[in-house]
Amino acid sequence: MAASASASLRHHLLLRRPRFPLCPNPTFRASSFPRRYQRLFASAPSSSAVDNGDTPSPVEPSDGASVVDVNPPRGTRDFPPEDMRLRTWLFDQFREVSRVMAFEEVDFPVLESEALFIRKAGEEITQQLYNFEDKGGRRVVLRPEITPSLARLVIKQGKSVSLPLKWFTIGQCWRYERMTRGRRREHYQWNMDIFGMPKVRAESELLQAIILLFERLGITSSDVGIRVSSRKVLQAVLNMYSIPEHLFTEVCVIVDKLGKLTREEIEKELISTGLSSEAVQGIIEVLSLKSLPKLEEVLGSDVEAVADLKKLFSFAEQYGYADWICFDASVVRGLAYYTGIVFEAFDREGKLRAICGGGRYDRLLSTFGSEDIPACGFGFGDAVIVELLKEKGLLPDLSRQIDDIVFPLDEELQGPASTVASSLRKKGRSVDLVEDKRLKWVFKHAERINASRLILVGKSEWERGMVRVKVLSTRDEFEVKAGELQ
Amino acid sequence: MAASASASLRHHLLLRRPRFPLCPNPTFRASSFPRRYQRLFASAPSSSAVDNGDTPSPVEPSDGASVVDVNPPRGTRDFPPEDMRLRTWLFDQFREVSRVMAFEEVDFPVLESEALFIRKAGEEITQQLYNFEDKGGRRVVLRPEITPSLARLVIKQGKSVSLPLKWFTIGQCWRYERMTRGRRREHYQWNMDIFGMPKVRAESELLQAIILLFERLGITSSDVGIRVSSRKVLQAVLNMYSIPEHLFTEVCVIVDKLGKLTREEIEKELISTGLSSEAVQGIIEVLSLKSLPKLEEVLGSDVEAVADLKKLFSFAEQYGYADWICFDASVVRGLAYYTGIVFEAFDREGKLRAICGGGRYDRLLSTFGSEDIPACGFGFGDAVIVELLKEKGLLPDLSRQIDDIVFPLDEELQGPASTVASSLRKKGRSVDLVEDKRLKWVFKHAERINASRLILVGKSEWERGMVRVKVLSTRDEFEVKAGELQ
Repeated sequence: MAASASASLRHHLLLRRPRFPLCPNPTFRASSFPRRYQRLFASAPSSSAVDNGDTPSPVEPSDGASVVDVNPPRGTRDFPPEDMRLRTWLFDQFREVSRVMAFEEVDFPVLESEALFIRKAGEEITQQLYNFEDKGGRRVVLRPEITPSLARLVIKQGKSVSLPLKWFTIGQCWRYERMTRGRRREHYQWNMDIFGMPKVRAESELLQAIILLFERLGITSSDVGIRVSSRKVLQAVLNMYSIPEHLFTEVCVIVDKLGKLTREEIEKELISTGLSSEAVQGIIEVLSLKSLPKLEEVLGSDVEAVADLKKLFSFAEQYGYADWICFDASVVRGLAYYTGIVFEAFDREGKLRAICGGGRYDRLLSTFGSEDIPACGFGFGDAVIVELLKEKGLLPDLSRQIDDIVFPLDEELQGPASTVASSLRKKGRSVDLVEDKRLKWVFKHAERINASRLILVGKSEWERGMVRVKVLSTRDEFEVKAGELQ
Repeated sequence: MAASASASLRHHLLLRRPRFPLCPNPTFRASSFPRRYQRLFASAPSSSAVDNGDTPSPVEPSDGASVVDVNPPRGTRDFPPEDMRLRTWLFDQFREVSRVMAFEEVDFPVLESEALFIRKAGEEITQQLYNFEDKGGRRVVLRPEITPSLARLVIKQGKSVSLPLKWFTIGQCWRYERMTRGRRREHYQWNMDIFGMPKVRAESELLQAIILLFERLGITSSDVGIRVSSRKVLQAVLNMYSIPEHLFTEVCVIVDKLGKLTREEIEKELISTGLSSEAVQGIIEVLSLKSLPKLEEVLGSDVEAVADLKKLFSFAEQYGYADWICFDASVVRGLAYYTGIVFEAFDREGKLRAICGGGRYDRLLSTFGSEDIPACGFGFGDAVIVELLKEKGLLPDLSRQIDDIVFPLDEELQGPASTVASSLRKKGRSVDLVEDKRLKWVFKHAERINASRLILVGKSEWERGMVRVKVLSTRDEFEVKAGELQ
């Protein structure tokens, strides 16, 4: 069973690499395909293999008939059954945690107005918009993230809903990078958001949701931690150096690159916004803090950042998840709109990118022309978590499973087989009706799809109103009246 | 309960109209929104109301700050919680039927290469492609239907799968109409497809799936019927008049418009393809047949169309769904690629568009440059079925439901409340943790979200390690040890 599960997931996992989770165009070996496909594969794979990333590659076979590329668009995924089972399983975990947390599911179009995502803070996410003009001249975008749509719907719902709102959604997000090879252009993201709760209780609830998910998946606090800080830490530092308010977002977005750029590059970028080198040193020093008492020492205890974080860590004790979270001032997150607590989950071995991230965004709604409502939320992608589950050997056995195979032994018994299959299906059993195959094939098929029973419709039995049942796990075999089959 | 259900679905249903199922931009009454939103709504609704269909409409409030339109892009829907519950319920029905039919779920990117959908038969679907060029110069499209993606994946999977394949998918499909107002640009579609079964057993299985769905929804065969015919009927007529093979698809696409255009317009279009007026008359006469014996009389019994249909109707008896289906030669369906049996479900009162439709497409794969595999399938949209359920009063009660509300009676009890909520959630109960509200609000809230119990964390109880439980349906009230709460 375990072996067949890992075989069924093999295809899925083969496509994953540590830093660039999915190679979008797996190369095919034409020789392993039946002859009838070889003409196609002789042409098609080369189109993916030599593609420089952005040149359209029409494939023209030698006989002149046009051949469609069998791969989905560059950077996107198909979900054949085994991959779909894994995705469904993961989404079911997201939904179950959302249910126990009493969040309601919502959804939005994957296509949104570009205006929702136009922000000028230099974020990576807005520089890689999958945007275009529709035929009516509208600027639209395949959404890069879901938070702005959530905020839009909250504004639209207006008085018809009572705050707080606790909403979750699972949806596909897109980005367009022109030159980088091998990175995916889409991923699915689980979002949980709370509107109308100004205090850190909201963030504490979000953290519990994330940790409940990890626990459901078999991940422990020695596998994964959640780094927590607050943008108000940075705000307090900027205040100390009397740095003007309007630079806050820009500084956050620069400082978020600390892991990716060198310290010197970060310093240079900060200086170029107009900060004094003294302020830059101050920022970088505070961001290196990993102890809350030390932070309190530096900023003073009357600073909101400190009070918020202390409250959050005290709640964590009482929820029972304190061993999952740690204070780390270097966490800023890359989205422009965060205003308070920010957090991200990471694997303790340090091999993977952030597993999920989120924070408070109390001032997003006013950027859309509405009055603000305090809000916070997180996004949890489908790629890194599967990487981690794979590393830890925690991927579940997700083989196909079927209750019954109904097989008429004769062509003239195809009618009766319809009756038998139909009646079992009406009782809720999953029934694969098989015909025009040899019995040997049917047995192999039963094994492949983990069928529980084989129902054979044979002539002599049917004449007596009976069918033959084989229970495949026990190899028991018996006759039963067709009408009494359960 | 029924009243509250219809209230919760009201928003959803208000958006539906008989022929143009969803009005994409509901107009808002600014007066019904809290004051804080009025500034926004004073501007935004006019943008939807006066929008001529294709002019981008930036909304500029009087104070000069830009205001984002709160509506999703023209012709698309948001799914607030009550609409999402309906959608989830419907999709669960699709999935349950697919499960008993032993189909496997698959999925594809909503964005596909345009080449998959370029067909020259004049189909409506290809004239309304939501297509554009990506930043890399590729022609891409928000898919108008899912069958070509299914076919693409079948080709890509090649030898790794054993035929027959029975796949289903539920996904969003898109179209772009430039001028028509009030029509939706997206809908969700359930698709079931079988690859590798050349005989009408496959179509019989698809029909059972559709009928099992109707039955699950409470729809009977006096509400809905399924018209069945075969493109081979038309093929036989074309053969009778020695009409060249290459005209077949074009004639099918024209003839499919019989309900929408007048008979004269259809005749004119047929004549313009080069058919003789005698052939045109012959076609139109045969298409008016609604009796299988009569068809056999006209075409002869050795014609494939007749044999296929007879076999299908004989299976229908044995599956037990014969009263759902009827022969109707005028059914041709609008997709170019159908080759054999075609069918569509309709409401017997004749008020709505087709509920779903499908057929056999044995020659689609060769248009993609691969060898053909016999295949058939159907698409079942999310719009017309909801219309019908509404008409028949069959929409379910889908109110929100929560197990417990945990409410600390004092601010200092917020910590203990975290412990209580956390422990209930770990037991699988859905828990809404509420604080900073009055008790009166909490009771109203409990009613609104159909909470089963209210868990009050009070000071004197907590000092004794107890919490107070109110069972809301019975008004029972008792104390219980916090650790023993189930």
